[in-house]
Amino acid sequence: MGPGPSNVHPRVLAAMALPTIGHLDPAFIDLMESIKSLLRDTFLTENEVTFPVSGPGSAGMETAVVNMVEPGMKVIVCVNGAFGARISEMVQRYSGTPVVVDAPWGKPIDPGKLDAVLTKNKDAKIVAFVHAETSTGARSDVKELARIAHKYDCLTIVDTVTSLCGIPVKVDEWGLDVVYSGSQKCLSCPPGLSPVTFNDRSIAAIKNRKTKVQSWFMDVGLVLGYWSGAKRTYHHTAPINALYGLHEALRLLHEEGLDNSWARHQRNSEILRESLEKLRLETFVNGDASLPQLTTVVVPGGVDEAAVRNQLLAKYNIEIGAGLGQLAGKIWRIGLMGCTSNEKNVRLCLQGLEDILKKD
Amino acid sequence: MGPGPSNVHPRVLAAMALPTIGHLDPAFIDLMESIKSLLRDTFLTENEVTFPVSGPGSAGMETAVVNMVEPGMKVIVCVNGAFGARISEMVQRYSGTPVVVDAPWGKPIDPGKLDAVLTKNKDAKIVAFVHAETSTGARSDVKELARIAHKYDCLTIVDTVTSLCGIPVKVDEWGLDVVYSGSQKCLSCPPGLSPVTFNDRSIAAIKNRKTKVQSWFMDVGLVLGYWSGAKRTYHHTAPINALYGLHEALRLLHEEGLDNSWARHQRNSEILRESLEKLRLETFVNGDASLPQLTTVVVPGGVDEAAVRNQLLAKYNIEIGAGLGQLAGKIWRIGLMGCTSNEKNVRLCLQGLEDILKKD
Repeated sequence: MGPGPSNVHPRVLAAMALPTIGHLDPAFIDLMESIKSLLRDTFLTENEVTFPVSGPGSAGMETAVVNMVEPGMKVIVCVNGAFGARISEMVQRYSGTPVVVDAPWGKPIDPGKLDAVLTKNKDAKIVAFVHAETSTGARSDVKELARIAHKYDCLTIVDTVTSLCGIPVKVDEWGLDVVYSGSQKCLSCPPGLSPVTFNDRSIAAIKNRKTKVQSWFMDVGLVLGYWSGAKRTYHHTAPINALYGLHEALRLLHEEGLDNSWARHQRNSEILRESLEKLRLETFVNGDASLPQLTTVVVPGGVDEAAVRNQLLAKYNIEIGAGLGQLAGKIWRIGLMGCTSNEKNVRLCLQGLEDILKKD
Repeated sequence: MGPGPSNVHPRVLAAMALPTIGHLDPAFIDLMESIKSLLRDTFLTENEVTFPVSGPGSAGMETAVVNMVEPGMKVIVCVNGAFGARISEMVQRYSGTPVVVDAPWGKPIDPGKLDAVLTKNKDAKIVAFVHAETSTGARSDVKELARIAHKYDCLTIVDTVTSLCGIPVKVDEWGLDVVYSGSQKCLSCPPGLSPVTFNDRSIAAIKNRKTKVQSWFMDVGLVLGYWSGAKRTYHHTAPINALYGLHEALRLLHEEGLDNSWARHQRNSEILRESLEKLRLETFVNGDASLPQLTTVVVPGGVDEAAVRNQLLAKYNIEIGAGLGQLAGKIWRIGLMGCTSNEKNVRLCLQGLEDILKKD
């Protein structure tokens, strides 16, 4: 019940243990096609270029940045937590010029502030933002941020690592250009894969680059030689068994239905919030900015937060997350993501917290 | 029986299906320590910095290049196949200046030629070479190439993707500086992880960089905050279940013994070569340059090589590899790597080839 990895369904674990076949085996090519199709359903997109990057969410983030950003390019990066800051750091490393639109940790990005910064930076080419900040539990209004970015002819890079399947992510309806996620949050797969989707505008921008993509491993043009087309060209050896797992997780999601997944995450989060209130524990993010899949809780004064987490793990076999960066020691992060989001877990976690805090 | 992924032992597959725990769980930190220790035994090194990169072999290659190469740095790259060429391409993308020492595909790198190129390029800082060229089946004399590189005060980057565990790789004895491998060859894990090891000299060189490592995801300095030290700092979410698999594969290797693994690869390769000779099939690489774990076979004149591979897969459930690049259509690549290297497989493959070629 931390901020990911979430619990993994037994069917997904069983799929991971199937015999490894070749990355160019016709049966595996069929599986790749099925994964791409199921991922499109999950991102609510028709984007042809939709596939899982062979690395964790941070590799997906870097894939977005390294393919879209050219040296000297101005990129507006919205920063209201650790992951926005990470995007900004990556833009800088790949010789782009990040211009930060910040918000306090725990608050959403203010669309008005983005608009004001764009007015002053009309040479910006890209706006990057995080849908669900895993470091704080805050949700930003991705639809509105994308609308403003497009008003200034900017492309958007959108982090949906923690949001995908937990709350609506409507790639085509909202016009999101480059979107990446992670396997280990609401998709309930083991960590290690990062689903991405690129729309036609973003692919056209990549084709018009004046410089080569600096990373060979993450160059989408090269990766697509393997992930699409009639003739599959070897690029790198795909993580076969991890992809078996992702495929099974996507099938489970398809069986439940995306709407039902969103509703389940919402329902269990409400039980969690009501019970936290009864325990007089204050939630860090509230209202529209809160996330059903990730609830951040203010550590009460005088409580040793690490001791509470350690006891929860030792006595109740439950992991919850610590605060990151400027929130270290100040909050707990309780994840109800994917398979982890069920009422039994919520009740057990709250019982554990109640028992431990009483003694503390 | 292609050039990787190899067959995976049932114990490794079963380990991959164990429940996913957190990447900061104390039990997982213990597992990480065990993996590091077993990897040191495998690389025959005492290097503190020895860990698996969270991505396939190409991510390991890029990790070596992006951490060691600074913009404008001259790098000697030995190229006798597709993977040497890939290193050169990566050096170029990260703004280094590659100077190529080439050899015909299928031949080892000539140490004398490397020496001659280094004499003319005394400003070179790094020499990069491939131990076992997966695209051709040729082995270069890594010990001798490293000796020459060090004579000119160069650090070495060594690709051991296909060599590790199949033939001796003696990192400390040979003084190799940065070495990377892959999980899916003679280690017999599913693809997706790349074990790497950096000696003290190479870590000192990284610490003395004038510029930041361009990749955030592959920055060894950042990754080590998670993989070493008393306090583990989150960098990216590790691929938990893939690491369960790697740990089990390393345990299996430890049980067999590295010497016994080398001997088994040698023994089965000899049976393969003798039988190929009986079938009057010519091997592409012979003598000291040949590899027990990867035998390349010249496609006989008039034979449709793809049809033969397709029939082997359909009728015998055996995959062998096609030629890559300039060898496409000209050779087959038969892998006897890790668990795949056993006499039963050799016999079945040869029976299949004999039957299919008779009819052809």
